[in-house]
Amino acid sequence: MGRNGAKHELPSRQELRVWRDYVETSEALRRLLGARLQQQSGISSADYSVLLALSEAGERAMRSSELAARIGWDRSRLSHHLARMEKRELIRRERCADDSRGSTVVLTDAGLGQFRRGSVPHLRDVHELFVDALAPQQLLALGDAVASLRAHLEQQCGELDPRPPGARGAAGR
Amino acid sequence: MGRNGAKHELPSRQELRVWRDYVETSEALRRLLGARLQQQSGISSADYSVLLALSEAGERAMRSSELAARIGWDRSRLSHHLARMEKRELIRRERCADDSRGSTVVLTDAGLGQFRRGSVPHLRDVHELFVDALAPQQLLALGDAVASLRAHLEQQCGELDPRPPGARGAAGR
Repeated sequence: MGRNGAKHELPSRQELRVWRDYVETSEALRRLLGARLQQQSGISSADYSVLLALSEAGERAMRSSELAARIGWDRSRLSHHLARMEKRELIRRERCADDSRGSTVVLTDAGLGQFRRGSVPHLRDVHELFVDALAPQQLLALGDAVASLRAHLEQQCGELDPRPPGARGAAGR
Repeated sequence: MGRNGAKHELPSRQELRVWRDYVETSEALRRLLGARLQQQSGISSADYSVLLALSEAGERAMRSSELAARIGWDRSRLSHHLARMEKRELIRRERCADDSRGSTVVLTDAGLGQFRRGSVPHLRDVHELFVDALAPQQLLALGDAVASLRAHLEQQCGELDPRPPGARGAAGR
């Protein structure tokens, strides 16, 4: 796996070509799916990330710090975004009894309903734009490469919290 | 390539697992590289995208509409971002003689210098976090899958403008 011990190398021409294709394509896909989600369901990709994480949490609730780590946002960005979602009654925040700075974020019934209504068209879009682009062998190979990449980032940077139990295979984002 | 004619399907459990790994890993990588770029070179990922596109354009200049299409932003976002970059003297905007609404965006010497200084550590980070995670076969397989994905998005949505001649293999973003 990889060529460790050569950390300060620059990518070769070919490596760079794959990298740029990967970055540009991921970005285009993210943009397209986000625009469709917003248009079809009135929620942004950011809303969807929050709703997805909460829908998978036990009792539909999470500490805000845990939620921030789960979706990879800093706490300030999360706090501003949650304030807007709270106004729309998609979530509600409750003070933690044992932590004066923290709060627990709870998915409301309205938020869960919005998430469920948004998920089906979103997952159809994922099929149409992502799954449908790839032959079965390509999907497997992509899954394999991404798993290595994920393990590498976990090892190098402690990024990517392990997923909560049962979350694998649940509604995709 | 793909299974067309079945556009309204939902992804299977396995397809969804690959999708979520792909999305979450891409997002973590984007965040990590962006944070390092900012810290090392004082430019954001957004700055870098603009500087990269301009550095590859003929005469270091592009119409703002062409730049927006190239990096996939809407014109309003681009216009706000360019105003901030212009204040920092990384770019300058010139009125187009033949288009009263449009402008030409020009990379300044300072902008080119900043881009070049930022590129080397950024590309080392790309090597460390991306290339180094993958065995040579995995990199090839990933490149193949991403090329199919790119072609599919081009065909379905007209996304992803063809790259300017000579841009492939140049400084990655």
